[in-house]
Amino acid sequence: MPLIREKLAQAVELVRNAGVDAWLTFVRETYGGSDPVRPLLVDGGLTWQSALLVFANGKKVAIVGNYDADPLIAGGHWDEVVPYVQTIRPALLEVLDREIGSASPRIAVNYSPHDVKADGLTHGMYLLLQETLAGTRFEGVLESADMIVTGLRGVKSPTELSRIRSAVKETQSIFQEVNTAAQRGMSERNLYDYIQARIRERGLGFSWDPAGNPIVNFGPNSMIGHGVPSPDIRLEDGQILHIDLGVTRDGYSSDLQRCWYMSPTGSVPVSVTQAFDAVNRAITAAASVLRPGVQGVAVDAAARASIVQSVYPEYLHAVGHQVGRVAHDGGGILGPAWDRYGNTPFVPVEQGQVYTLELGVTLSECGYIGLEEMVLVTAEGVEWISERQERLWVIV
Amino acid sequence: MPLIREKLAQAVELVRNAGVDAWLTFVRETYGGSDPVRPLLVDGGLTWQSALLVFANGKKVAIVGNYDADPLIAGGHWDEVVPYVQTIRPALLEVLDREIGSASPRIAVNYSPHDVKADGLTHGMYLLLQETLAGTRFEGVLESADMIVTGLRGVKSPTELSRIRSAVKETQSIFQEVNTAAQRGMSERNLYDYIQARIRERGLGFSWDPAGNPIVNFGPNSMIGHGVPSPDIRLEDGQILHIDLGVTRDGYSSDLQRCWYMSPTGSVPVSVTQAFDAVNRAITAAASVLRPGVQGVAVDAAARASIVQSVYPEYLHAVGHQVGRVAHDGGGILGPAWDRYGNTPFVPVEQGQVYTLELGVTLSECGYIGLEEMVLVTAEGVEWISERQERLWVIV
Repeated sequence: MPLIREKLAQAVELVRNAGVDAWLTFVRETYGGSDPVRPLLVDGGLTWQSALLVFANGKKVAIVGNYDADPLIAGGHWDEVVPYVQTIRPALLEVLDREIGSASPRIAVNYSPHDVKADGLTHGMYLLLQETLAGTRFEGVLESADMIVTGLRGVKSPTELSRIRSAVKETQSIFQEVNTAAQRGMSERNLYDYIQARIRERGLGFSWDPAGNPIVNFGPNSMIGHGVPSPDIRLEDGQILHIDLGVTRDGYSSDLQRCWYMSPTGSVPVSVTQAFDAVNRAITAAASVLRPGVQGVAVDAAARASIVQSVYPEYLHAVGHQVGRVAHDGGGILGPAWDRYGNTPFVPVEQGQVYTLELGVTLSECGYIGLEEMVLVTAEGVEWISERQERLWVIV
Repeated sequence: MPLIREKLAQAVELVRNAGVDAWLTFVRETYGGSDPVRPLLVDGGLTWQSALLVFANGKKVAIVGNYDADPLIAGGHWDEVVPYVQTIRPALLEVLDREIGSASPRIAVNYSPHDVKADGLTHGMYLLLQETLAGTRFEGVLESADMIVTGLRGVKSPTELSRIRSAVKETQSIFQEVNTAAQRGMSERNLYDYIQARIRERGLGFSWDPAGNPIVNFGPNSMIGHGVPSPDIRLEDGQILHIDLGVTRDGYSSDLQRCWYMSPTGSVPVSVTQAFDAVNRAITAAASVLRPGVQGVAVDAAARASIVQSVYPEYLHAVGHQVGRVAHDGGGILGPAWDRYGNTPFVPVEQGQVYTLELGVTLSECGYIGLEEMVLVTAEGVEWISERQERLWVIV
């Protein structure tokens, strides 16, 4: 499993850079959720309370229930796997005490009011940890690991990047199939079903909840945003066909939007091409600002200024988010300084991160024109991971 | 969606019984995890910070990001859906202030050091909530909702129960297929692959991580517990074939263990039938104690005493857990008073809950003899949901 090896090596560096003695991921019953960082550290689930510890001294120790120990030992990524039966507490304290020499110890754990993907520690588990450390030299030393987790999830390893590229290729190939599958008279639900069948046929997963993936919009009466496809809205001439689709390949995601125009003559109204071009220009404007060190808020501002300059309304979301194990992968965001984004628009962009660039405008006569591309942040700027949609596709 | 309607009606009663003014489920980016209670309250995902509020006055209010509002309104289960764009805070405070008249308000939120499925609030979201309520009359009023969530998840609605019964039937039908599929010389991995193909063919999901589901054990050298199937351990005469399998049908789970003995002559050594019978008796002993009002620790003690009386070692786990959306569904457990179970062995059993009853013994010469059944708690005792395995199955 090169992925786990890559991420654990990266984690040791991040722990050192954060200046803490240890990074502790503390989980239980991980199936169906739990800390989103878990799949970067171990293959498969953990059942009882489990402590995954990466120390600044380079040591990696997993303390897990006895029935979970054998697969972890077989995986070979952890220097030490400590099984327990009745209680994790003595083993946890013993390992912390042995590996942390510092007189003023610092232990980072996975909570963050800002970054959802660095916020995998539940409040109950936090209380349990506090109680376990009370009265020891580790009492009161817990701090947020958001710098570590943001770095670990955000900066992609070679394996992660190649999986994301594969997911994007698959998505683009499905969009190709839509060119012939989209038939006048079919409902949004029909096309949604068609695309889901293609996803399953290819053995892919979903980057977000399949109930709303793909998002399929036909014309101006469609449910915008994270809506559900309608069985009643049918594809007609003069409509925009808009799709937002994200699939996973080997656990890594794509997230792309494309749009088509239904025109039996092949001609497109000027108002529609103007809107498309304005959206496309705003994405270019965002990309031209995106590079290591910049804050996401500046990237969003560039796209926002561009679309407003083209005399369209502002979009009501961020112009981009990171993509990884899921479509919305946490960390810094390319978004406005709105309260609900917390500090995430102000986290500096780093080389090796993958972002979407996305926005749209609604035309009251024909529907939503939305585009979403994906880029990799390079040393100098960006590399496009997706093949950009440069002009509106017409279904004759 | 009768399921959501059933669970929301149940939730109102639980909020009243808990004596709190409101129960708040506070989530964001729910895809791929988040609060395990979310699927009982809304279909599909929630993206931005979202507050799902059930008040003791009977009112149900959802405050969600603007792109998530339409599907919730269309679902029709919430009395009021409040969309927002930039920040959830003013709407949240306004709704709390309007719906809670009490001079000493009490708001329950989803944290619990004990019950993993009542512990869906992350520590970062808890801090965000505390900050939002600071300086208002709701400062410092948060308390654990574990009584509410334990009740809501544990006591199954008619729809939930019928889905669990379907999942159990599918599992039993797959076990039937194993009778002919199990061939001498095949590896654990081969049989695991075969069973996974049957699961997918039937359109079922997995009750726990597919990496270790089913657990397949051939003979004495197999990895016990939550192990991974070996490509090298092959099925031979004189071995126990043991399978632990859990599937989901429409989002609800089964979790059953069965075992076979490989014997070309059809005869089984006395030591093997004795061990099987002892395991089976211990399960009967647990079932005879299980009824509303009893504590799980007493049920576990009955099985533990039985297996020890049969002169086999104690099992190193709980004799039973609740089953629902996943195999290990949280709430009270039928387990020993070990630290890692927290208070869960002491939560009184309620009518309408679904439990496993499971244990095993290892015979050094032929492998692990483990059984797991499922029961529904009735007014008087239990109803078996699974068809019990009453004797060892022999593959001739």
